[in-house]
Amino acid sequence: MRISELSARTGVTVPTIKYYLREGLLPEGERTSPTQATYGEAHARRLRVIRALLDTGVSVAETRRVVDALDNPPANPHELLGTAHAAITPIGDDELDLAAAEELVTGLGWKPGMCSSDVLRAVARALDTLESAGFTVPAEVMPVYLDSIRKIADAEIAGVPQDSIDAAVEYVVLGSVLVEPLLLALRRVAQEVSSGETFGMKG
Amino acid sequence: MRISELSARTGVTVPTIKYYLREGLLPEGERTSPTQATYGEAHARRLRVIRALLDTGVSVAETRRVVDALDNPPANPHELLGTAHAAITPIGDDELDLAAAEELVTGLGWKPGMCSSDVLRAVARALDTLESAGFTVPAEVMPVYLDSIRKIADAEIAGVPQDSIDAAVEYVVLGSVLVEPLLLALRRVAQEVSSGETFGMKG
Repeated sequence: MRISELSARTGVTVPTIKYYLREGLLPEGERTSPTQATYGEAHARRLRVIRALLDTGVSVAETRRVVDALDNPPANPHELLGTAHAAITPIGDDELDLAAAEELVTGLGWKPGMCSSDVLRAVARALDTLESAGFTVPAEVMPVYLDSIRKIADAEIAGVPQDSIDAAVEYVVLGSVLVEPLLLALRRVAQEVSSGETFGMKG
Repeated sequence: MRISELSARTGVTVPTIKYYLREGLLPEGERTSPTQATYGEAHARRLRVIRALLDTGVSVAETRRVVDALDNPPANPHELLGTAHAAITPIGDDELDLAAAEELVTGLGWKPGMCSSDVLRAVARALDTLESAGFTVPAEVMPVYLDSIRKIADAEIAGVPQDSIDAAVEYVVLGSVLVEPLLLALRRVAQEVSSGETFGMKG
């Protein structure tokens, strides 16, 4: 299809599509003349993925890394997850105390070497932020976090499609980042439901 | 203490403190002369909270609303949670299909009227994003999300401090937003642990 048709199909304007092409987020179409190119279903699908990532607040640079991971998948789903996480986890060169993070994640079944250091650093950074704000997760709440999140991750990993590497890549990369807003929004609803039941509804 | 001392104590520069004062994030100190003011422990604590919120990616406008909630707490912890969520949940005037969101959150124990519409709209927006990207949460994974998140929320609400309204306000407001990066980072570690156990470690 022509770029105008790709635009009509996906609801993304032609200038925006051209911007994604320039930024290397969307692969070039097949040249049919020096000034025209033709695009396929894969472009329409990729456009939807790009929009979803950018709408979720992922930066253009991170989106490019996610797209690279989709285009160059490692052979093993476990390595794939590391690649996906590396793409979407801010690295940062801040000084972090990893010891507390490592102790915490043993509660998830973690053992040394079991996950990428970027992801461990993200835990350390989150703990650091809480400490700076003087906020302590109550001692009886933390084990519930660890237990519930391990259950979530087990269900997600069990759900990785085994039929094709393409399907597995898309599931792992998109599932890691796009599901986050859903989980956070569900948590807020659940907090209000639980609080309503505990403290009584108003009105 | 003088502003220079407040700066030394908290690690926030004097120009940044003055910026927070102008933006209404930090309450004015007590005037001791036309050009000088004195600050107390409450200012140091508030500064740490402001830094934590901004570091977490909360906007200045949202931080101001969180700070307002801390300064003007409603009498009932349940209303307080609604205020806190309203402060940190983007409103948006997008067209959203709430029916699918409402059906989903019944799995959390939700009944009509049980939570603020902003929070329900956040669920609808998250579902919308997933659909736009062509991503479907597997049918066997969604019930695990609902069950685990309800357990998390119950533990959090049971942990609301009952001794003082100030402590309850701070717990609810900060706990809602500051704990999010921790939960997301723990999920990524748990995914890598679970994936390593399922697909085998590399190397």
